[in-house]
Amino acid sequence: MTLVELCKRAAEAKYEVQYLSADIKNKALLKVAEEILANAAEIIEANSTDYKIAEENGMHPGLLDRLLLNEKRLDAIAEGIRQVADLPDPIGEEIEETIRPNGLQIKKVRVPMGVVGIIYESRPNVTPDAFALTFKSGNAAILKGGSDCIHSNIAIVKYIRKALEESGVTPDAVQLIENTDRAVTKEFMTMKQYVDVLIPRGSAGLIRAVTENSNIPVIETGTGNCHIYVDKEADLEKAIPIIINAKTQRIGVCNAAESLVVHEDIKEEFLPLFAKAMNEHKVEVRADKDSKELIEGALDAAEEDFGKEYLDYIISVKTVKDVDEAIAHINKYNTGHSEAIITENKETAQRFLDRVDAACVYVNASTRFTDGFEFGLGAEIGISTQKLHARGPMGLKELTSYKYEIIGEGQIRG
Amino acid sequence: MTLVELCKRAAEAKYEVQYLSADIKNKALLKVAEEILANAAEIIEANSTDYKIAEENGMHPGLLDRLLLNEKRLDAIAEGIRQVADLPDPIGEEIEETIRPNGLQIKKVRVPMGVVGIIYESRPNVTPDAFALTFKSGNAAILKGGSDCIHSNIAIVKYIRKALEESGVTPDAVQLIENTDRAVTKEFMTMKQYVDVLIPRGSAGLIRAVTENSNIPVIETGTGNCHIYVDKEADLEKAIPIIINAKTQRIGVCNAAESLVVHEDIKEEFLPLFAKAMNEHKVEVRADKDSKELIEGALDAAEEDFGKEYLDYIISVKTVKDVDEAIAHINKYNTGHSEAIITENKETAQRFLDRVDAACVYVNASTRFTDGFEFGLGAEIGISTQKLHARGPMGLKELTSYKYEIIGEGQIRG
Repeated sequence: MTLVELCKRAAEAKYEVQYLSADIKNKALLKVAEEILANAAEIIEANSTDYKIAEENGMHPGLLDRLLLNEKRLDAIAEGIRQVADLPDPIGEEIEETIRPNGLQIKKVRVPMGVVGIIYESRPNVTPDAFALTFKSGNAAILKGGSDCIHSNIAIVKYIRKALEESGVTPDAVQLIENTDRAVTKEFMTMKQYVDVLIPRGSAGLIRAVTENSNIPVIETGTGNCHIYVDKEADLEKAIPIIINAKTQRIGVCNAAESLVVHEDIKEEFLPLFAKAMNEHKVEVRADKDSKELIEGALDAAEEDFGKEYLDYIISVKTVKDVDEAIAHINKYNTGHSEAIITENKETAQRFLDRVDAACVYVNASTRFTDGFEFGLGAEIGISTQKLHARGPMGLKELTSYKYEIIGEGQIRG
Repeated sequence: MTLVELCKRAAEAKYEVQYLSADIKNKALLKVAEEILANAAEIIEANSTDYKIAEENGMHPGLLDRLLLNEKRLDAIAEGIRQVADLPDPIGEEIEETIRPNGLQIKKVRVPMGVVGIIYESRPNVTPDAFALTFKSGNAAILKGGSDCIHSNIAIVKYIRKALEESGVTPDAVQLIENTDRAVTKEFMTMKQYVDVLIPRGSAGLIRAVTENSNIPVIETGTGNCHIYVDKEADLEKAIPIIINAKTQRIGVCNAAESLVVHEDIKEEFLPLFAKAMNEHKVEVRADKDSKELIEGALDAAEEDFGKEYLDYIISVKTVKDVDEAIAHINKYNTGHSEAIITENKETAQRFLDRVDAACVYVNASTRFTDGFEFGLGAEIGISTQKLHARGPMGLKELTSYKYEIIGEGQIRG
């Protein structure tokens, strides 16, 4: 099947998927979970083909781990799909209603996007997860995963399509781009005629490539150069556990902290405590001139360090003379993801909340909470770092649009 | 000033503009209206320079008219700015608030986009209008108007900036790109580092150029290939005035009707009435095979006619056998703008509302109502034909984003 034909099929399927009842969608999702488990052996076999090739090609152990599927992971995938079935259906919600002076009744109604394209890397768990969220929100999905997990994806999508068909739903509601050539991916980014929105999930490089090449509206997700600012009026007993959590609880994620910003008035008291904590957690510290001598074992921070998403046991340190310098520093280097202040002063906290330009701004809490589940959205397709459409964790609602329905009795414009 | 420097200035100004109080913004807007009127002579003189050059270059009379500024039009512009000052300030609104089981307080707060870029054609009235809406919604604006009205734009922006300065607001809140070379415009579309959203206003060609070349998130506005479907259960006494209004009240606008779709069961009764009305309003009819003989003076419609936004006294006619064929035809050819059904059957109306994929779907009313003022938004920056972020008429709220403010007491993620 050509790419155009595949996109056309999704674009036709969207008219069917958009008005499926919640009941039909939920039953189909449960059937998908069932089919994945019933065919676990075949999916795991396909995955082991991917795994062997990747291993031979010298893939990094961290990436190999993300590639791996086993029974336990398939159980978790099936459970994830069942949870999406349990979420309320966002489609059809009346968002607003007004009657105009001329008698026109204007309703703003939640509708699906239509066709959602998702471009991601070699994480086969994204395939069923992304399908479940786009389908539940009434969209057709076109999935383009990494070449390293193509056998896994083909096997998974085969059973998603089978489950849809058995549920009386068009299997064209999900399309997998099997040809993982870069040229095909690039061509996919120009299928504006058929695709309503494109969501890249993955590295900064992937996201940049999509925003540069796509003529389809894009929602950027992902990269997080997150800061924690410890104010002069911080409660240091809150600060240390928050920094440890934000930096080390999971290093490879976008909501992990990458940089400490510290008020100079407390540096002598606070930085030795910070140094001890980082040392205990084997975190390398790259410090600016004003802080380095107070942090045992710290290296010199280069200017580039402040712009880096390390995704590693490394943290940079920047000293500032007040909250405004902290805000300016963060607004210069951050990626619009998650930023935190530790302070007991409510006015300072509010200033930070108001002026830091990021999706999620925290007072006295870990940046690690930026997550659809933690925010109570029930699920997450990604974390938007742009301001258009959705910002921060995106759940089902963020995969929808709206339309105006206007009911008249013959009104014309004067 | 280089383009990069200009963009940087706007990106710095956004931090000031975003937290201006409603009072300061409103006073500044009133001052802008005042300065424009006080310097009407200079602005009109600059405009007459543009006008003379355009006239010598043989500009189409319709475009010349859009280019023209006179005292009456400047009065209307000033009044428009005052009306924006009167609108409620969208910034700071608490959209949602939840307390999570772990005690985290999560507030979703309306914030500005930051820097809004607007690319438009030679309509100098767009300059103050676009500035007023972006400024009131807390954004810095970078304006790039058509080369044919550059003298007018320079004069207008001069007095906007003067009024801002006199109101104690940074004049960098508005930037005009004075170099109207295509290469500069293209470069502007890649200033993602500084510009948060780009709104092209104008022809389909302009919008296509922006979506193809921009790496900044874009809101598409504008093109409307709008249909009116007359169902077999239509009240023909409603149908005729609605079609006349939608087609002829203003032919050059995006919410004007371009095509009639008619149910075959009523074609013999309805089409002669339609033909008479179009004839009286000097509208050329391009009809399909099944309708042509019933419409006096109709020409043959070619396949391309159904995809055309004529913006002229021309309408195409397509006969269908039922509402589903009407829906399929419209979904194939429309531009996602405004579509109407004329029917007395509520079920048929609902089917049309549900399944037509467009920003605004009407029952028994003219498509001409798709407009920010008519919808009660108070103003309009454009009409979005995409599904991401905003759809249909965009007012002040649609020029905003949101951020999450999360207040904790030391919470860390387990």
